[in-house]
Amino acid sequence: MNAQPSSAPAILGYTYATPDAARSPLTLDDLDRLKQAVGLTPEDEPYRRMAGEVLADQAEDMVTAWRAQLAEHPHLAIYSATPDGHPNPDYSAASKPRFVRWVIDACTRPFDQAWLDYQHEIGLRHTRDKKNVTDHAKSTDHIPMRYLLAFTAVVLVTARDYLARHGHSADDIDKMHAAWTKAVMLHVTVWTQPYVALENW
Amino acid sequence: MNAQPSSAPAILGYTYATPDAARSPLTLDDLDRLKQAVGLTPEDEPYRRMAGEVLADQAEDMVTAWRAQLAEHPHLAIYSATPDGHPNPDYSAASKPRFVRWVIDACTRPFDQAWLDYQHEIGLRHTRDKKNVTDHAKSTDHIPMRYLLAFTAVVLVTARDYLARHGHSADDIDKMHAAWTKAVMLHVTVWTQPYVALENW
Repeated sequence: MNAQPSSAPAILGYTYATPDAARSPLTLDDLDRLKQAVGLTPEDEPYRRMAGEVLADQAEDMVTAWRAQLAEHPHLAIYSATPDGHPNPDYSAASKPRFVRWVIDACTRPFDQAWLDYQHEIGLRHTRDKKNVTDHAKSTDHIPMRYLLAFTAVVLVTARDYLARHGHSADDIDKMHAAWTKAVMLHVTVWTQPYVALENW
Repeated sequence: MNAQPSSAPAILGYTYATPDAARSPLTLDDLDRLKQAVGLTPEDEPYRRMAGEVLADQAEDMVTAWRAQLAEHPHLAIYSATPDGHPNPDYSAASKPRFVRWVIDACTRPFDQAWLDYQHEIGLRHTRDKKNVTDHAKSTDHIPMRYLLAFTAVVLVTARDYLARHGHSADDIDKMHAAWTKAVMLHVTVWTQPYVALENW
């Protein structure tokens, strides 16, 4: 699979399915066990895909809205700011296309080795291992795990309105939202691995 | 506040708002910052309370259903089983009333020092620090953080149907589900603290 459709402009630092992504310490069996734990079943797949279609042209708006919500709170804004707390527009501009792409990837990518590897890469990019490296950014060097997890609530809750905007039935919206919730929790769970020794994680 | 209504039977090991609960390493300022990160606002409070009313007589069914889903997967069932993998009905029976009570507490308790302390106690009870201690259970001694986080998706997704069973409007159900999602993510986030050094968490 190509890292992205050939018609799309290249996204700097988006190393999905390339040798430049980190190698996940997890196995495909680990991934299966995690899919079972979030409750993902084959019945979710068409609704995850449907969510991807509904969100495709809204993903940038979603990321803009999430970042606006982060910007309201200095203790959250600091992780995209300069070390002395000033706005960092170059860093924000560089990382935004990857965040937007993640929304679509979360709905469309198969859960395979390339998925595991790139999620591990994303996880590392939240921590002292790799934060700022991709964009050569001057910023705080670590996002506390607590805020990564807590803000996931916003990503889950706000998605519902976007999922409802294409005129689908209430039942389809519920099922898309369920698939989104399971998929997002699967991603975020894997992103936490670099914070915790593997035997405790 | 009393640990529980005086009319309810005592729940063994339920040490909410008592000196027997652990002391949280977090401050009330930390809690405020986490509430902001999950997006909880005063507008959520009436819907969190409404969810508490809707779920009050369904909480036991919810826990039963969640445990049935865990029981389907040996790699998840093991954390309530004996160390050699056999069912552990005494442990399950002893811990169930606390799990049921958590559903109600998540919707009704104020977010204060007693909340912080008891959530820390719950977090410790998932790990080698305190798992099995409360019920003198013979069981695996640690729940990996990955499964704690991943199974949260099930707790979030399945709640919607229960919230919809009291004839509330679609808008009220959405708002109750949003408040539930934010509250659950706040709880689970705090439960992860014992897994991670405080300066990285």
